[in-house]
Amino acid sequence: MTVAGIDARTGERSAVSCAETTANDVASRCEAAAQAAAGWARTGRAERARLLADAATALEGRAAEIVATADAETALGEPRLTGELARTCFQLRFFAEVVCEGSYLELTIDHADISPMGPRPDLRRMLVPVGPVAVFGASNFPLAFSVPGGDTVSALAAGCPVVVKAHEAHPATSALCHDIMRGVLPDGVISMVMGREAGIALVRDPHIRAVGFTGSVGGGRALADLAASRPEPIPFYGELGSVNAFAVTPAAAAARSGEIGRGLAESFTLGAGQFCTKPGLAFVPAGAHGDALRDALLGTVEGRAFTLLTDKIREAYTDATHQAAEQAADAAADPAADPAVGQGAGRPAGRTVAATVVEVEAAGLTPELLEEVFGPYLVLARYDSAAQLRAAVGMLPGALTATVHAEADDEIGAELARTLTARVGRLVWNGYPTGVSVGWAQHHGGPWPGTDTVFTSVGATAVRRFLRPVAWQSVPSGVLPEELRDEYDGAPRRVDGVLQLPNS
Amino acid sequence: MTVAGIDARTGERSAVSCAETTANDVASRCEAAAQAAAGWARTGRAERARLLADAATALEGRAAEIVATADAETALGEPRLTGELARTCFQLRFFAEVVCEGSYLELTIDHADISPMGPRPDLRRMLVPVGPVAVFGASNFPLAFSVPGGDTVSALAAGCPVVVKAHEAHPATSALCHDIMRGVLPDGVISMVMGREAGIALVRDPHIRAVGFTGSVGGGRALADLAASRPEPIPFYGELGSVNAFAVTPAAAAARSGEIGRGLAESFTLGAGQFCTKPGLAFVPAGAHGDALRDALLGTVEGRAFTLLTDKIREAYTDATHQAAEQAADAAADPAADPAVGQGAGRPAGRTVAATVVEVEAAGLTPELLEEVFGPYLVLARYDSAAQLRAAVGMLPGALTATVHAEADDEIGAELARTLTARVGRLVWNGYPTGVSVGWAQHHGGPWPGTDTVFTSVGATAVRRFLRPVAWQSVPSGVLPEELRDEYDGAPRRVDGVLQLPNS
Repeated sequence: MTVAGIDARTGERSAVSCAETTANDVASRCEAAAQAAAGWARTGRAERARLLADAATALEGRAAEIVATADAETALGEPRLTGELARTCFQLRFFAEVVCEGSYLELTIDHADISPMGPRPDLRRMLVPVGPVAVFGASNFPLAFSVPGGDTVSALAAGCPVVVKAHEAHPATSALCHDIMRGVLPDGVISMVMGREAGIALVRDPHIRAVGFTGSVGGGRALADLAASRPEPIPFYGELGSVNAFAVTPAAAAARSGEIGRGLAESFTLGAGQFCTKPGLAFVPAGAHGDALRDALLGTVEGRAFTLLTDKIREAYTDATHQAAEQAADAAADPAADPAVGQGAGRPAGRTVAATVVEVEAAGLTPELLEEVFGPYLVLARYDSAAQLRAAVGMLPGALTATVHAEADDEIGAELARTLTARVGRLVWNGYPTGVSVGWAQHHGGPWPGTDTVFTSVGATAVRRFLRPVAWQSVPSGVLPEELRDEYDGAPRRVDGVLQLPNS
Repeated sequence: MTVAGIDARTGERSAVSCAETTANDVASRCEAAAQAAAGWARTGRAERARLLADAATALEGRAAEIVATADAETALGEPRLTGELARTCFQLRFFAEVVCEGSYLELTIDHADISPMGPRPDLRRMLVPVGPVAVFGASNFPLAFSVPGGDTVSALAAGCPVVVKAHEAHPATSALCHDIMRGVLPDGVISMVMGREAGIALVRDPHIRAVGFTGSVGGGRALADLAASRPEPIPFYGELGSVNAFAVTPAAAAARSGEIGRGLAESFTLGAGQFCTKPGLAFVPAGAHGDALRDALLGTVEGRAFTLLTDKIREAYTDATHQAAEQAADAAADPAADPAVGQGAGRPAGRTVAATVVEVEAAGLTPELLEEVFGPYLVLARYDSAAQLRAAVGMLPGALTATVHAEADDEIGAELARTLTARVGRLVWNGYPTGVSVGWAQHHGGPWPGTDTVFTSVGATAVRRFLRPVAWQSVPSGVLPEELRDEYDGAPRRVDGVLQLPNS
């Protein structure tokens, strides 16, 4: 069996095809990762950071080749993929900075003392790497959420070797990035497997200590179950599905209908609508301002064609958009009315599709219309009143993001912000949820099905997933890790309850 | 069905008996917790801290009654239970301090900026409570790991209402503590259920957002599976089984055989050997110094009687100690030799037992001998050489703690410390693992089966289990939480990548 590279535009097999990894080879790569784990964990933070930065430089050195390979496999286009490579390299250097800064170690020292409970021993705590990590590449980001992507980089930064399961949508891109990364990192610190069965074997392998996953709810949940059912269960960090509500208050629609309509159109079709942060459900007021917003939205996407990543995504998109349109038509109060489909009713050949906007009344939202559909698809829910909006927002499932468009002193907007914050990982105000900047304050997660954990997969704290605490009790200085000796000054530490910054 | 309070010493039913909670009552308590969640989360940190301290004062005000009730149910004795109540109240006040200090919020602000990736929006991140938490009380700590215990307090401190499933081993103690806590906290913020079926219903209840559990591997794993199989899976934080290796180097045995033997004897029998940190497996050198250590150990426990917490624990103890003794006898090189049982070969009536020490060669350790047995039971593994010790340590499962006794410049001890750190959550040097102090640097966790997560259940960072991150993007100051407004100065914050301490 091979995983063939498919040209996304022509459907032809590319010259590169990559064999599915056998069970024996999965086992030997995990074994190699386990062999490399102690050495990589012991590698100083400065040296680990230097190697991450070197990996960025090495990827940049072959940018043209990477972008061309990824474009052939994904049809995402050169500008987007050039940007995605820049993001990927920025992320490698950002995690190098996070590692050097050292707060992530959570260094804590309680000197021996007399407490209200009696004598207390000297106790020192820091986080240490969990060991080899399995990373599942995503279909929709062949670079930033795949072989050299966020899960890989945060695990490497934490001090863990990584075995990546490459996504079938871009095997050649994955193989190329893997070769480049492997050329920079020590033996066994990064390796790759291909194929569905290999992914299952990877999650089951006893050397693997944690799993990072970006993908569908169904696939993620199946792998999470596998991780939980091992003789020694391991944490599964899944970034799964998200419908990303987008709510426009009456005041905002009155003030900025055209601008919001055009902005929303660009956001839900960005990357052919295949972002996990795509706004998939917009609440827009009934009436003239809302109509103007809708018209600006439809006018922006009209006539545009989008190429989806895989045949499977295209089939799911076509099926879901037809079902949703039928449902919306059935639910329409006036059966003679327009079935409320904006675009995309046809079933075009290949992977190229038009955008689809399904317009419904907010009161008529069904659970089916609250499910994520990959591709340029948007449910436009029109609300009559703040009460109706409130009721509809109350039935939303957990999500990665929610967006509020409101005006100054807009009470409905402030209330929406409070309500939506309880259901999401990131609240966007007068902006668009697509575009997840890499930084210290980012959070990319959220209640199920956004993620199944209390962690992020983007931003500085993504490293926490691949670390575990250890406490040393009464251990002499010479046996302690360097960072926990009294004289160390290379990172913030909490000493006897007081947070202290390094002097340098 | 009722859960009757049983007098641990006489086996008689106590006057107090508590009805098992019906499915309807479980649902209504979870509903009440959900109703209380937003208000409790919004309650300022200073006020939450004050209420935690008030709960401590209220418990102290009824100390005599609590200790007497718990002693009747557990036979743990007044001194131990008085100490446990002091620990519980200290812990309530410690978490009040953690809440006020505010580092746990992980406040992070990235102002809008131009990054190498282009313009970046203003992004602000903090942790927020996950919502209602289910806490499973432990059999072995009727106070410190039960209704008013560490899981409850860390969830309350984080801003989450708690529904406790009381342990059947001490229903009257649980009911009393629950009444006292409920008298202090707002309505719905703490409630309690009783009975096995009620516990299952609790984990399944859709309002519950996380579970904290202290107990057996079997019971914990079954509940973890339930939590993972919900339509919306929730995190399960289990503190499960641990054999807690205790290794004595040849140099340490030569220098301190009597002291270590006596100290180990006190540690493995503390609380009738029913601590999760009980040293269950000691590596001691063959030869005269090791013999002296063993003799000091046996001499210390000889003739002592220990009352176990429940009939179930007593039965498991009797079965396990007999099986282990038989196995050790079968494995003995010389079949005519003493079957290596120190104490406890009889099957005493009631819950009172003698201590059991099973002596084996380190090379003859079997997986069965590496399993945790509750009660005053210790496997004493004698090693001939550093190589044999290294091989035996290499087969240890994950655990909460490991202990090394070594001398200055003791190379074997330093190597053991490094090796054992990879398998445990806390490494103890020249001390004893029982006694888990509550503080900033504590870690009570460790690789499976110590825990199933990368978190602690004791110490300041226990709150992290019941929090999730939220990021606010471009949100105006008036709509932001107070802690994320520019002018806030009540806790450490990371601003534009730089960690800053409050000025006060």
